Amino acid sequence: MAKTVRVELKERSYDIQVGTELALASAMGAGAALIVTDSNVDPLYGAQCERQLLAAGVRVARAVIPAGEASKDLHWAGVLYAKAVAAGLDRKSAIVALGGGVVGDLAGFVAATYLRGIRFIQVPTTLLAMVDSSVGGKTGINLPEGKNLVGCFHQPVAVVADLATLRSLPQREYVSGLAEVVKYGVIWDAGLFRDLESSVRGLLDRNTELLDRIVARCCEIKAEVVAMDEHEVGPRAILNFGHTLGHALEKATGYGRLLHGEAVAIGMVYAAYLSTGLKGFADDEYTRLVSLLKSLGLPVKAEGGGGAWPDVREAMTTDKKASQRVPRFVLAERLGGVVIGCEAPEDRLKEAWDVIS
Amino acid sequence: MAKTVRVELKERSYDIQVGTELALASAMGAGAALIVTDSNVDPLYGAQCERQLLAAGVRVARAVIPAGEASKDLHWAGVLYAKAVAAGLDRKSAIVALGGGVVGDLAGFVAATYLRGIRFIQVPTTLLAMVDSSVGGKTGINLPEGKNLVGCFHQPVAVVADLATLRSLPQREYVSGLAEVVKYGVIWDAGLFRDLESSVRGLLDRNTELLDRIVARCCEIKAEVVAMDEHEVGPRAILNFGHTLGHALEKATGYGRLLHGEAVAIGMVYAAYLSTGLKGFADDEYTRLVSLLKSLGLPVKAEGGGGAWPDVREAMTTDKKASQRVPRFVLAERLGGVVIGCEAPEDRLKEAWDVIS
Repeated sequence: MAKTVRVELKERSYDIQVGTELALASAMGAGAALIVTDSNVDPLYGAQCERQLLAAGVRVARAVIPAGEASKDLHWAGVLYAKAVAAGLDRKSAIVALGGGVVGDLAGFVAATYLRGIRFIQVPTTLLAMVDSSVGGKTGINLPEGKNLVGCFHQPVAVVADLATLRSLPQREYVSGLAEVVKYGVIWDAGLFRDLESSVRGLLDRNTELLDRIVARCCEIKAEVVAMDEHEVGPRAILNFGHTLGHALEKATGYGRLLHGEAVAIGMVYAAYLSTGLKGFADDEYTRLVSLLKSLGLPVKAEGGGGAWPDVREAMTTDKKASQRVPRFVLAERLGGVVIGCEAPEDRLKEAWDVIS
Repeated sequence: MAKTVRVELKERSYDIQVGTELALASAMGAGAALIVTDSNVDPLYGAQCERQLLAAGVRVARAVIPAGEASKDLHWAGVLYAKAVAAGLDRKSAIVALGGGVVGDLAGFVAATYLRGIRFIQVPTTLLAMVDSSVGGKTGINLPEGKNLVGCFHQPVAVVADLATLRSLPQREYVSGLAEVVKYGVIWDAGLFRDLESSVRGLLDRNTELLDRIVARCCEIKAEVVAMDEHEVGPRAILNFGHTLGHALEKATGYGRLLHGEAVAIGMVYAAYLSTGLKGFADDEYTRLVSLLKSLGLPVKAEGGGGAWPDVREAMTTDKKASQRVPRFVLAERLGGVVIGCEAPEDRLKEAWDVIS
């Protein structure tokens, strides 16, 4: 069972494979590779991934970083550069990211900058990485001052999303990934949103056939958005719905306390509330969004863990999308339709915070 | 007195200004900027550069790194990222590199990766940076394992080469820059090579009118080569004439002992010697190259300072251009004509080393 989604970016076009029993080696086309994975994923899939590549005649080395957001920094980039040199990677070699968003973002940044850029293959093993971070070429690392403040655009040559790996994903992480799935419904496809509303049980059961359809649809949407605007000079920013507050929450609470999807879920409620006042987003659509997130087991309020408003507010001004320290939001006009680059009056920002905290 | 050389790269095209009394501010078009400079250049031109930008209404911060190749590393990149955050740089801001190749490469890497890439302006203050490193969009930092092993392609939005700054350049550094000037004669323009042969006195006197012509001609050649092949998938590699051994020498002797141009001068003699045996490069052209380099005060032998052959040979296998650990050379067929991607038998490599050591 496999679907292929094409990302159209001229000479940088590539395929996303979604399904089970996929062939990683066929996507390689490189003589040597460094697999980058983390301490959670390595025991589950590290050896299997390495065997597949070895069987295809690829010279393979493997680097394991500690699981968690804290590894996505300049220090671990330096460690991976050294591993790449030690493994003898040259300009024709590849880096394979086996894991979730942290592994993909960090390994992608290393692939983008080692020898000024080598081939990069994404093998996402989390729902979040499959539907979001593995597609579109954004790579990045965190600074003490904020998340993803350093990075490059560097498209992978292939994305291989094996749904079988989702079975081993801890429940909290799996559910966190569903937040980005819901996001695609809000920003692009009201039909997908309705589909999700009627599939809550199957989603929570991780039904493979259902996931095959939903994951592929999310990849299609992301591919379409990225093809419009590879370097986020404009419309691609719709993908940041829920992320202005989401990133600020992650920062204000210390990275890792809230999972990314959890922060985005709260951030979507925040943005949706702002949207009701500023963009005529209907109250019943706001309610449907909150209900869907809740029924999937996602948080819709910051509740205690969200940090103090002054900290959160300050964190929003150092977001990459902020201009002259004024935070920018993606706001919804309706389910399936959003606008980018919105500002909001200071009192509205605080009012919406009071609603969700 | 000013010349403008256009670098044609479609939407990434930009102008190089060469001359004296140039207008840096007119090249800005940014609301905020971080000037990156080093401890040698800052006392000479730091305040002047800052004043120019302030007068144009640009919000300016300045970061000073220790002069020397050792600052071109991941640590100092991290320091500059923090400065960029502290200065409140956003996606519309710019980084201005005021200095030589080290400053330009490091600041360019930071500009390429901060917020996934912001505007970048080169203000080269050394001959080497004016004719070579400031043009073409290569940025990079060193790893303990080798030079420029990490980097990005990131084109500046402008290059402002003020020849007046060359007057303050220490003699050894100025002469080192002449090595890259000679290189353009060998790889592209026999007429330029003859021009240099008859201008040795003027070059050593740093005659401004002569430099105006010569620097602009070198920039034209580099612009033409870069326009053919921005990302060095092929012909751009001719710019690496003399650099395979040059980089290895710098590495084997410890960065900073030999200046880059000095290492390249020795590397050009090495490559030219290989060329006489492998590519029919004429003996008298080889002799003319050695003579010109000598008359300019450049080294043509490694002599003591070059390190041991096994170290140098090993350093060549980890060069970025090496494939499967086999070193690749740019070799000359004649003055003005070279070929890329050449390999050489092991005994020839050693024989040529014996000639120049």
